[in-house]
Amino acid sequence: MKAYQIVDDNGIDALALNEIAMPELGPTEVLMKVNASSLNYRDLLTVENPGARNLSYPRIPNSDGAGEVVAIGQEVTKFAVGDRVCSTFFQSWLNDKIVANDHASALGGALDGMLAEYRAMPETGLVHTPPHLSDTEAATLTCAAVTAWHSMVEMAHVTAGQTVLLLGTGGVSIFGLQLCKILGARAIITSSSDEKLARAKALGAWQTINYRTHPDWENRVLDLTDGTGVDHVVEVGGAGTLEKSAAATRNAGSIGLIGVLVTGEFNPMTILAKSIRMQGVYVGSRAMFENLNQAVSVAELRPVIDRVYPFGEVRQAFHDMRAAGHFGKLVIEIQ
Amino acid sequence: MKAYQIVDDNGIDALALNEIAMPELGPTEVLMKVNASSLNYRDLLTVENPGARNLSYPRIPNSDGAGEVVAIGQEVTKFAVGDRVCSTFFQSWLNDKIVANDHASALGGALDGMLAEYRAMPETGLVHTPPHLSDTEAATLTCAAVTAWHSMVEMAHVTAGQTVLLLGTGGVSIFGLQLCKILGARAIITSSSDEKLARAKALGAWQTINYRTHPDWENRVLDLTDGTGVDHVVEVGGAGTLEKSAAATRNAGSIGLIGVLVTGEFNPMTILAKSIRMQGVYVGSRAMFENLNQAVSVAELRPVIDRVYPFGEVRQAFHDMRAAGHFGKLVIEIQ
Amino acid sequence: MKAYQIVDDNGIDALALNEIAMPELGPTEVLMKVNASSLNYRDLLTVENPGARNLSYPRIPNSDGAGEVVAIGQEVTKFAVGDRVCSTFFQSWLNDKIVANDHASALGGALDGMLAEYRAMPETGLVHTPPHLSDTEAATLTCAAVTAWHSMVEMAHVTAGQTVLLLGTGGVSIFGLQLCKILGARAIITSSSDEKLARAKALGAWQTINYRTHPDWENRVLDLTDGTGVDHVVEVGGAGTLEKSAAATRNAGSIGLIGVLVTGEFNPMTILAKSIRMQGVYVGSRAMFENLNQAVSVAELRPVIDRVYPFGEVRQAFHDMRAAGHFGKLVIEIQ
Amino acid sequence: MKAYQIVDDNGIDALALNEIAMPELGPTEVLMKVNASSLNYRDLLTVENPGARNLSYPRIPNSDGAGEVVAIGQEVTKFAVGDRVCSTFFQSWLNDKIVANDHASALGGALDGMLAEYRAMPETGLVHTPPHLSDTEAATLTCAAVTAWHSMVEMAHVTAGQTVLLLGTGGVSIFGLQLCKILGARAIITSSSDEKLARAKALGAWQTINYRTHPDWENRVLDLTDGTGVDHVVEVGGAGTLEKSAAATRNAGSIGLIGVLVTGEFNPMTILAKSIRMQGVYVGSRAMFENLNQAVSVAELRPVIDRVYPFGEVRQAFHDMRAAGHFGKLVIEIQ
Repeated sequence: MKAYQIVDDNGIDALALNEIAMPELGPTEVLMKVNASSLNYRDLLTVENPGARNLSYPRIPNSDGAGEVVAIGQEVTKFAVGDRVCSTFFQSWLNDKIVANDHASALGGALDGMLAEYRAMPETGLVHTPPHLSDTEAATLTCAAVTAWHSMVEMAHVTAGQTVLLLGTGGVSIFGLQLCKILGARAIITSSSDEKLARAKALGAWQTINYRTHPDWENRVLDLTDGTGVDHVVEVGGAGTLEKSAAATRNAGSIGLIGVLVTGEFNPMTILAKSIRMQGVYVGSRAMFENLNQAVSVAELRPVIDRVYPFGEVRQAFHDMRAAGHFGKLVIEIQ
Repeated sequence: MKAYQIVDDNGIDALALNEIAMPELGPTEVLMKVNASSLNYRDLLTVENPGARNLSYPRIPNSDGAGEVVAIGQEVTKFAVGDRVCSTFFQSWLNDKIVANDHASALGGALDGMLAEYRAMPETGLVHTPPHLSDTEAATLTCAAVTAWHSMVEMAHVTAGQTVLLLGTGGVSIFGLQLCKILGARAIITSSSDEKLARAKALGAWQTINYRTHPDWENRVLDLTDGTGVDHVVEVGGAGTLEKSAAATRNAGSIGLIGVLVTGEFNPMTILAKSIRMQGVYVGSRAMFENLNQAVSVAELRPVIDRVYPFGEVRQAFHDMRAAGHFGKLVIEIQ
Repeated sequence: MKAYQIVDDNGIDALALNEIAMPELGPTEVLMKVNASSLNYRDLLTVENPGARNLSYPRIPNSDGAGEVVAIGQEVTKFAVGDRVCSTFFQSWLNDKIVANDHASALGGALDGMLAEYRAMPETGLVHTPPHLSDTEAATLTCAAVTAWHSMVEMAHVTAGQTVLLLGTGGVSIFGLQLCKILGARAIITSSSDEKLARAKALGAWQTINYRTHPDWENRVLDLTDGTGVDHVVEVGGAGTLEKSAAATRNAGSIGLIGVLVTGEFNPMTILAKSIRMQGVYVGSRAMFENLNQAVSVAELRPVIDRVYPFGEVRQAFHDMRAAGHFGKLVIEIQ
Repeated sequence: MKAYQIVDDNGIDALALNEIAMPELGPTEVLMKVNASSLNYRDLLTVENPGARNLSYPRIPNSDGAGEVVAIGQEVTKFAVGDRVCSTFFQSWLNDKIVANDHASALGGALDGMLAEYRAMPETGLVHTPPHLSDTEAATLTCAAVTAWHSMVEMAHVTAGQTVLLLGTGGVSIFGLQLCKILGARAIITSSSDEKLARAKALGAWQTINYRTHPDWENRVLDLTDGTGVDHVVEVGGAGTLEKSAAATRNAGSIGLIGVLVTGEFNPMTILAKSIRMQGVYVGSRAMFENLNQAVSVAELRPVIDRVYPFGEVRQAFHDMRAAGHFGKLVIEIQ
């Protein structure tokens, strides 16, 4: 069977499409035919700079995969052959709080990921796919959607009537926008592109802010909220946004601090002065993914997909992610 | 100015429409022109049997009122003349948990209520009216809507993807149904009338159950939820429902125990066996009302009103509530 | 190896001490030499009336066991040979909320229990023993101590300065009393025996109430708390206590509803009127047991043991539990 | 009556002891004879640099005061003449979450403080004094003890068996240490002075670390906690401690971010990687102070006082705080 592998630190164009052995199936494992895998910015960083993450080679990238169960170990109880499934980001984080060891179970990081035709995984490392979604759609949920859900619902209990600030139009923010709609919350979203903001508006954003036109966008957020600030920020980072996000948050509001784009230092004085709660949000547990899927199913939410690539064009997909012109997810279909 | 007063224990037809003195305005009080007041079952019980509640006569009934600020005391800071306002059920319960003393501040109970042309109230006993609602609509929120919100959101954190069981089509349950929609949750609702269930379905109920056709409706709920049970029950009571509600709740689910219809005894064994959380929900605080109003405003929710009565037909409205043929709120317009 | 087994429904004296096969060890299992096992009232009920619980025969009773790891399966990672361990009540409830399936994993109920020389158990069905405790002491924790901890800490977040009501001097209440001391909380405890109350006082009870002398003990509790009521009740039941417990609880306080002694019906009106939270507490998860053990270790808490029996006198121990003259736990030492 | 006032920006020695008019008493106010006031580092900063805080002159410094009610307004219900009382830091923050307006009600900041013989205050700006404490002792609670309580109990629910990291031996940390004892938690405390660490040990610290001897004290904390890290840090700041504190915290642990000593920038990557919750803790509400006092009363906790000064030696007390040789609180007795 075929899989993409990171084999050195030479970046996107060095990604190798290799023929490797079919995985062997343990007694508590499920063999999954992977039909689609989406890209996250974290996957791009991994491919571009595996050394920074202490990966061993070869390593299959990507956390996100959707497909079908084609065989099960003899002790498997949660899935049957034919079930449609999605991978969970941390194979060992089932519920409750994360523990240090869970970090060593991240797909496409410490463990091989989903850019492969087949994967053998513990049954606790999968969830059922929401029935109304195609595999191409479902392959977008594992990292970005779970992250947005964790920040807004599991961490901050965002509920009807509240206001959420979303920074940029990357995968986490677009899911955040769609989740606001089904939670009854108002989304304020930023971008440097009026065209992307128009699309965000069409998806249900309450207010949009062009941060190039309004470099002091935190004041614009305050204006939009009668000077109070938002209830919650899904802080996906980027240089220098955190202090502005804190300035845009209400007293005793919250900030979900999300990942790979966080750079630089910040002065925590606003966190203190406004009694803000800031919490690291590192994707989420299997239980959170199941909660998300319930919400996605009830609302019949459909992920926003920018472009679908055949399995042979994985390198192009990573180049497109680097170019950052997309709005919504980039998905690889595998066969 | 005119007000209805309970003057003895002779019930609905003894309600007196009296000319009484305009209230005097304290320094922290607001004078409200009441434009509408809705009826709750609790108000009916109060009118029918004031002795059971140790009321002193005369007593103006009804907790729910909406109208306009016509004068303010010199220390008032939250409201200005012309502001549109609604009464809060407990005049002293501002936020956080209820304390024993708050019980003595209930409108239309320990204190005079809203069936009057004018009322002087502490500024902390009012909230701003959601702008998109008429006073007739807003006059439905104080008791029933706040109760449903408290049970589902403040107590149980019901969120997108969860399932809520609503018993009957009284005011609390209909608001519960509308709130499910804006929270992304699924509502299962019961009634003895297929016609009312059809209306509930049109309002967005996920599933409906006729409890006359299905006297074992708790099993029907389990069937609808793959044998698991619902996440939360808004238990408005009635004889013998509590044990069935518990049977219809999932392990570690919750039941909001609401009011005046609770009768009889129950065996707590199911609460124990299923690790259910059951909590008394006594309307709610001023802060909860403000949270509700945010949600109502963002969703532009419109209360379901069955019938509007002129001020002169208050007795007819109470008779109609007793007859229980309505679906949605009964509202009195005051001039 | 030897084990006691329930072989019919003839009660205590029919308990059979049988020679049975050594258990086989699965790859994720631990073989435990059981050195001590304590009795809980639930175990007595099981022995006396196994039919009521749909047990299949033969069945080894008792949830509580402490001992030593003597062999491990090849995939075991949490324990090594020589580790001192205690059994968890539900073998499958690891953390987070209980789910329906966990009920089928209760030791000495759906599964064989700990009155045996050896037991093979999944490694997730054990916890490390607090180092300062002997096995005889540690064998008291699994059911009663975890239950008290769950009710007071995990459910109600009882903390320093709060007041807890404990009913009677059974195992759960005595642990509740000891936990109050290390949490900085005040315990009020009831009994029909002044002698037991004196011992409870010596263990640190803030106030004691003889419920025979004060049949209206709920009013005594109110008097002791300036008319407010306690923050939390560990409600271990018995006929007719629940309404009194609710009367003794403050507005917005909580009641942990525990177990096997709950009988009869109750009127939920007080729960409603006082906005009380009542929650079923069914022992607890593995994570709760680990949290308890941390607290027990830091405080160097020592369980109160009334009497220790050799393995040959198990029937006497059950008779003594039925006679209810004990104060503290009854423990069987196994060799 | 006499009061100290900040009258310019010339620092400690410019503090003026002035004769000013007795305050007039509003209908909802209490006249308090102040008998003692303690110093916090925040008060020192205010005296040294009032311009940085936009104070208007003259301004009476200090948030902390304890004394006696000598007169009450006609609408006062919570206090009677003769009651012993303490000031609350924010006069308007009663319970629940802080709102922006509460900042304008801080004593010794936006409002006049407690370094005066008499103060008229709204009855909601006071709490009852724990009966076992002298006024000199009780005058230490308002700022430092409430802050430690808020961080550990109200924010982080620190409970028995958990481990807390305390930085330095200032007022907040010493109260944190004493609270650990009554909560059943273990305290690790740092200082640059072995003599202060010995005193901390005598007060019940579980472990002490000299951060001069161990500049990589975060690794020492990890060693002491089996590599896991502490459950909670009371982060009182100082240059560059925040990143080390995060390194010393367990996955999904928490950091209470406190005050005036926070300086410089920090890299939030550890917060993110370890899913840490960091929250601004700005003293606390009146309800938190009441909760603290319950705990203080039950445990008969006695604040650690380093030195007591007569009213005439206020400037010396501020100089001693600047010199930072103290261990425990510096208290002014007023008459």
